[in-house]
Amino acid sequence: MNGEQYLLLPGPTPVPERVVRAMNRSMINHRGPEFKAIHDEVVEGVKKIYHTNQHVVIYPSSGTGGLEAAVANFIAPGDRVLAISIGVFGDRFADIARAFGAKVEQLSFPWGKRADPARIKEKLEADTNHEIKAILMTHNETSTGAYNDIKAIRKAMGDHPALTLVDSVSGLAAIDLKMDEWGLDVVVSGSQKAFMIPPGLSFLAFNDRALEVHRKRSNSCFYWNVETSLEYQAKGQTPFTPPISLYYGLQEALKMIQEEGIDQITARHRHYRKLVRDSVRAMGLQLLTDDEAASPAVTSVLAPEGIGANSIRQYMLEKFNIVIAGGQKDLDDVIFRIGHLGYIRDLDLLTVITALEITLLQLNVPIQQGAGPRKAQECIIERLGDIERME
Amino acid sequence: MNGEQYLLLPGPTPVPERVVRAMNRSMINHRGPEFKAIHDEVVEGVKKIYHTNQHVVIYPSSGTGGLEAAVANFIAPGDRVLAISIGVFGDRFADIARAFGAKVEQLSFPWGKRADPARIKEKLEADTNHEIKAILMTHNETSTGAYNDIKAIRKAMGDHPALTLVDSVSGLAAIDLKMDEWGLDVVVSGSQKAFMIPPGLSFLAFNDRALEVHRKRSNSCFYWNVETSLEYQAKGQTPFTPPISLYYGLQEALKMIQEEGIDQITARHRHYRKLVRDSVRAMGLQLLTDDEAASPAVTSVLAPEGIGANSIRQYMLEKFNIVIAGGQKDLDDVIFRIGHLGYIRDLDLLTVITALEITLLQLNVPIQQGAGPRKAQECIIERLGDIERME
Repeated sequence: MNGEQYLLLPGPTPVPERVVRAMNRSMINHRGPEFKAIHDEVVEGVKKIYHTNQHVVIYPSSGTGGLEAAVANFIAPGDRVLAISIGVFGDRFADIARAFGAKVEQLSFPWGKRADPARIKEKLEADTNHEIKAILMTHNETSTGAYNDIKAIRKAMGDHPALTLVDSVSGLAAIDLKMDEWGLDVVVSGSQKAFMIPPGLSFLAFNDRALEVHRKRSNSCFYWNVETSLEYQAKGQTPFTPPISLYYGLQEALKMIQEEGIDQITARHRHYRKLVRDSVRAMGLQLLTDDEAASPAVTSVLAPEGIGANSIRQYMLEKFNIVIAGGQKDLDDVIFRIGHLGYIRDLDLLTVITALEITLLQLNVPIQQGAGPRKAQECIIERLGDIERME
Repeated sequence: MNGEQYLLLPGPTPVPERVVRAMNRSMINHRGPEFKAIHDEVVEGVKKIYHTNQHVVIYPSSGTGGLEAAVANFIAPGDRVLAISIGVFGDRFADIARAFGAKVEQLSFPWGKRADPARIKEKLEADTNHEIKAILMTHNETSTGAYNDIKAIRKAMGDHPALTLVDSVSGLAAIDLKMDEWGLDVVVSGSQKAFMIPPGLSFLAFNDRALEVHRKRSNSCFYWNVETSLEYQAKGQTPFTPPISLYYGLQEALKMIQEEGIDQITARHRHYRKLVRDSVRAMGLQLLTDDEAASPAVTSVLAPEGIGANSIRQYMLEKFNIVIAGGQKDLDDVIFRIGHLGYIRDLDLLTVITALEITLLQLNVPIQQGAGPRKAQECIIERLGDIERME
C-alpha cells in the first residue's frame, strides 16, 4: 500500500528518524570509555524523567523483565503481597509475584475503572501487624485504557511500611509521575512506549529503602540482581553486554524529551486524550472508561452494536494501513484501542479519526458524516489557543 | 581519528551494513501477521544453526539472560549440579545455578586449558545413584580463548541421565556444534557474537527431554518460562514485546549465514585462528592456550616480559583506532585477546597483526620487523589455495 503505516498501538510506538539514525552507529566496546559516557548520560537522563535522585538500573529485556526484576529483588518467597489489578497487566504483575513464591492477595477492580484508594486504605489499616510486605500497582493499564491515581493511592497507604511497587511501563514520560515526591519505592518502565525507542530495554528505579529490603531478603536471581548492577554502574558499565544500539537510541530520545520538556510532553498526551475521546463521542461511539480514569496514553472504544471491533480494525488496516490495537481476553472483539503515545502528533490522530469514521460508514453504522473530524479539528484549534496563552 | 574503528572483541562484533539497513525499518505490531512471518522465519533459521529439530526460544536479553533461563527452567532448588569451568564464563554459569538454589559441585580446569572428558566420566561413573541432575559446560570460553570438545564430553557422559546444559553464547555459528547429533539437551547462544547483530537477543535451544524435566521441577521464573514461550510461538508471537529492530537484524543476518553456509563459516573461523596464532608466534610472542584447546573465535596472547598487556591495547587504540580485549580477573594486564569472530575478514586480521607488530617495536620489544605480517600473508595465500581446491 502506498504511504507509511500509521502505528497507533499503546506500544511499540513510532521511532523518530533522529533516533533511527543514532542507532545506526557502529558497535563499540561496552567496557570502554565511549560506552561509559553514553551509559552515564542515559542513566542520569532516565532519572530526570522519574523525578528521582535514587537508583535507576537499565536491563536488556522487555518491560515484563523489569517487572520480574522488581519482584525478584524486592519480594521474598512467602512474603504477603497486596496486588491491585485493574486489567491484564495488573494481573500479570500479581502472577509474577506468585511465580516467585509470594502469598498474593489480589484486589481487583472492574475493567475500565481505576482503583479506589479508600479500599486500599481499608486493607492496609486492617493489617495491624504489618504482614503485608509489598503492594503492587499499575500506573497505566494498557489493556483497558484506565490509569491509576498513584499519588492518591500512595497517600492512602499512610505510614504502612509495605514497599510500593509501580508498573509504569506504558505510563512514564507520558503521564505525570514523581517518584521521590510521591514516596514510591520501586517504579518499572520500558523503552518502546513514551521513550520512543524500539522494545528491548526496561528501567527499574528504586530507592534506598527498597535496596535495604533487597539486602535482607532477595529472591532467586542473578541476571536481575540490582547490587551487581549498581556495582558495575559505578564504573560506567553494565554487568552483562548491553544492547548497544538501543543505548544509542535512548541517548537521542532523551535529548528530544529534554528539548520538549517533560511537563509539555504530559500536557501533549492529555490533549491527545481529549481529542480522541471527544471525537469518538461526537461520532456517537461509547468509551470503556469514564473521564476520571481515562488514560492520556491509550483510549478504549466500544464497538457499535452488531459490529465486531476486530472487523473495524481489519478494515482500517486493509484500506488505510492504520494499525490500532484490539481488546484482550474478555474484551477481544468488544473494544478497539487507539494508542496516542510517544512520537505522534495531533494531525495523525485527526487522520485516524477520519479514517475511523469512513470505516464505520462503510460498515453501515448509522452515524453522521463529518462529526468526528470536525471535533478533532476543534480540539486542535483549542489546543493552539492554550499554547499561545502559555507562551 | 581518521577511518573507521577496527573492533576485534570476542563480542560485540561488527554489524554488517546490510543488517544495519534491515534494522532501520519502522516499528510494527508485534501481534500482527507481518511480525509473525519474521518470527517464524528467524526461529526456523536459528534452529538450522543449532542443527536441531527441537525447540528454540528467543529472549530479549543479554547472553547471560539465556544462561539464567537455562537454569531457571531446567534446574530445581536443591538439585545436584556438576559445573565444569575453564574460565570466567564457566564460573558464571555455576554462580547462576547457585543463585537458584542448586547444590553445585564445580570441576575447574586451569585457565587456558580445556576440560578433560576423562575426569568428567570419572565423576559421573562415581554417581551411581544418579544424584547429579545436570551438568553445565562452556563451549567457547571467551575469557581465555580455549574451547571445549563438547562432543567428546557428551560421549564421556555415557548413559548418565543428567541434562547437558551448554553455554555456546560465543561459540555457536563460529565453531561447529551439532545439538541433536551430539545429544545435547540445552544450548544457549547470543546475538552479538557470530550472529553479527547488536547485543540484546539470547537463544535457548532445548529438547523434549529437557522440557519434560521443566514440567516436573521448574524454578522461580515468569519471564523465562519456556512453556509460555512455546505457547505464544505457536501463534507466531512472543509472550512479551520483542526487540523488533533486533529481529529485523537477525532475519537479515540469518540470510547472510545461509548464503555463506554454516560449514564454510566455521572453516573461515578456523582459518582466522591459524592466521592469528601463526602470526603472533612468528613475532616471538607466547599464546595462553595450546593448539588443541585453541578457540576459532578468540586468541589470548601473553604480553612480552616487562610490558603490560593493557599498554599494548592502549597504544593500538590511540594510534590505530584498533580495539582488542584485555584479560579478565587474574589475567588482567597479563594477556590481551584478539577477537576473530563474526563479520570480519582475514585482511582485517593482517592489518591488526601489522599494527600489533608496529606497537611492539615502538614499545621497544626486541622483535624482527616483518615476521608477523609475512606469516599472516602466507596464511591468506594458503587459504586461497584450499578454497580453490575445494571448488
